[in-house]
Amino acid sequence: MRIIKSPQEMQQTALELKRCGKTIGFVPTMGFLHEGHLSLMNIARPDCDVLVVSIFVNPTQFGPNEDLDAYPRDFERDEQLCEAAGADIVFYPEPDTMYFEDASVWVDEEKLSVGLCGGSRPGHFRGVCTVVAKLFNLVQTDLAVFGEKDAQQLRVIERMVRDLNIPVNIIRGPIVREPDGLAMSSRNKYLNTEQRQQALCLKQSLDQVASLLRQGEAIVANLKQQMVVLIGTVPGAQIEYIEFVDDETLAQVDRVESRTLLALAVRIGPTRLIDNAVLHP
Amino acid sequence: MRIIKSPQEMQQTALELKRCGKTIGFVPTMGFLHEGHLSLMNIARPDCDVLVVSIFVNPTQFGPNEDLDAYPRDFERDEQLCEAAGADIVFYPEPDTMYFEDASVWVDEEKLSVGLCGGSRPGHFRGVCTVVAKLFNLVQTDLAVFGEKDAQQLRVIERMVRDLNIPVNIIRGPIVREPDGLAMSSRNKYLNTEQRQQALCLKQSLDQVASLLRQGEAIVANLKQQMVVLIGTVPGAQIEYIEFVDDETLAQVDRVESRTLLALAVRIGPTRLIDNAVLHP
Repeated sequence: MRIIKSPQEMQQTALELKRCGKTIGFVPTMGFLHEGHLSLMNIARPDCDVLVVSIFVNPTQFGPNEDLDAYPRDFERDEQLCEAAGADIVFYPEPDTMYFEDASVWVDEEKLSVGLCGGSRPGHFRGVCTVVAKLFNLVQTDLAVFGEKDAQQLRVIERMVRDLNIPVNIIRGPIVREPDGLAMSSRNKYLNTEQRQQALCLKQSLDQVASLLRQGEAIVANLKQQMVVLIGTVPGAQIEYIEFVDDETLAQVDRVESRTLLALAVRIGPTRLIDNAVLHP
Repeated sequence: MRIIKSPQEMQQTALELKRCGKTIGFVPTMGFLHEGHLSLMNIARPDCDVLVVSIFVNPTQFGPNEDLDAYPRDFERDEQLCEAAGADIVFYPEPDTMYFEDASVWVDEEKLSVGLCGGSRPGHFRGVCTVVAKLFNLVQTDLAVFGEKDAQQLRVIERMVRDLNIPVNIIRGPIVREPDGLAMSSRNKYLNTEQRQQALCLKQSLDQVASLLRQGEAIVANLKQQMVVLIGTVPGAQIEYIEFVDDETLAQVDRVESRTLLALAVRIGPTRLIDNAVLHP
């Protein structure tokens, strides 16, 4: 496995691989890898000749009061995990090699980015779209796997690929959960023992909705109310948003009567966690 | 020479050419070709295996009160000119195949786009950047030639390529002029005989500055004043802007003491014409 730090070297390597007819698969990450990331690599591995994993905590997708500096990092461990997962190249650039000081070009998605996480994290998806567009150009990828845990990000990137005619096949990787249901996230590291327990309320509230839906309750206001009650019983849990939206347009819905994305963001103490489920009526 | 109308077919063709190791050169145009466009093809031709010319009057770079519908079109003539210039593929898509109705992703350049034409044509460079990013992805080009007549566009695109790590070599094609100095433009077709004569004031004012500069006059206010006087003598000529800017940052300068772009836009009757010169102190 090769580690490449220079964007120029990454691109030259990728262009050379493409000239030789190789298929490139790509899993972009912010590092501090967990089984969720590894599952994405496992999905990509059989469908490509060369598997590239990027590890880059992208500064432009963090807001001024967010956890850019605190974001957990452990490159040595990540490196070993990538090697074990069969990655061929780890692309591990420094922030100052990825962005010029006078950078002035951004990729903006203006419909799907507006609500959900976009509402509380202004500029987040501009940072995500821009860095993913850059990474796709550097890695020259044929297919890229993104996790369904970041449901809005996934849909925004699919839209970007469609609207900019980027020749990359986007593959959705299912959410990977801890045995007790907590969705895997690098940010779970922020949780102490008590908060780790409290964090289960996200998945529990999703399961509750699935169960109510099976019992015939399709009115969003009622479903949401039950989630608020459940999460309200957990000390230290603060709801940032709970949204039922059309799975394609991300427009809010009043009833679950077509494919609906239920997404929520909850703070457990200072830690912001997200989770989601796609509901079928 | 092959004519491709479908974006999907263009991209599949280009990807296949790339897999075979071919180098693709690209000249994007809005059609109604003149010798300026042909000179760009001549520049690209020796440096690529396959030369693609696109003909697409891109609606997203026109403002609501601009000349989208009036923009001159003559595909049959364009086709013959492309063939004569040695193009291998003409990409000629319909607008509704290039943009989805719910398109929501845009490429924005936020520094170089602000002044000059960006000031009077809000949204213009968003449209330009977005369509060029799309075309680059569809044509899978290795090199692309853009004319220096659209000086700001050229610099905005160079910046986009740099900031988004697009692996395309941008080549600058010098301005091609009529024997009397008028810069070639598809919009020259709008000029009647009298206006055609009046339109010479753009190049004449650029030449006047070059001459004053040689005589030691480097103060922008004075140079500009002389241009205003010269163009002021032409009936029906209305200055939209005359700007002396740093050739790299496009920031306004007070003195011509480093590489300076002198750009101007002048209306001759209802027709908006642009021209420019790079000044060396």
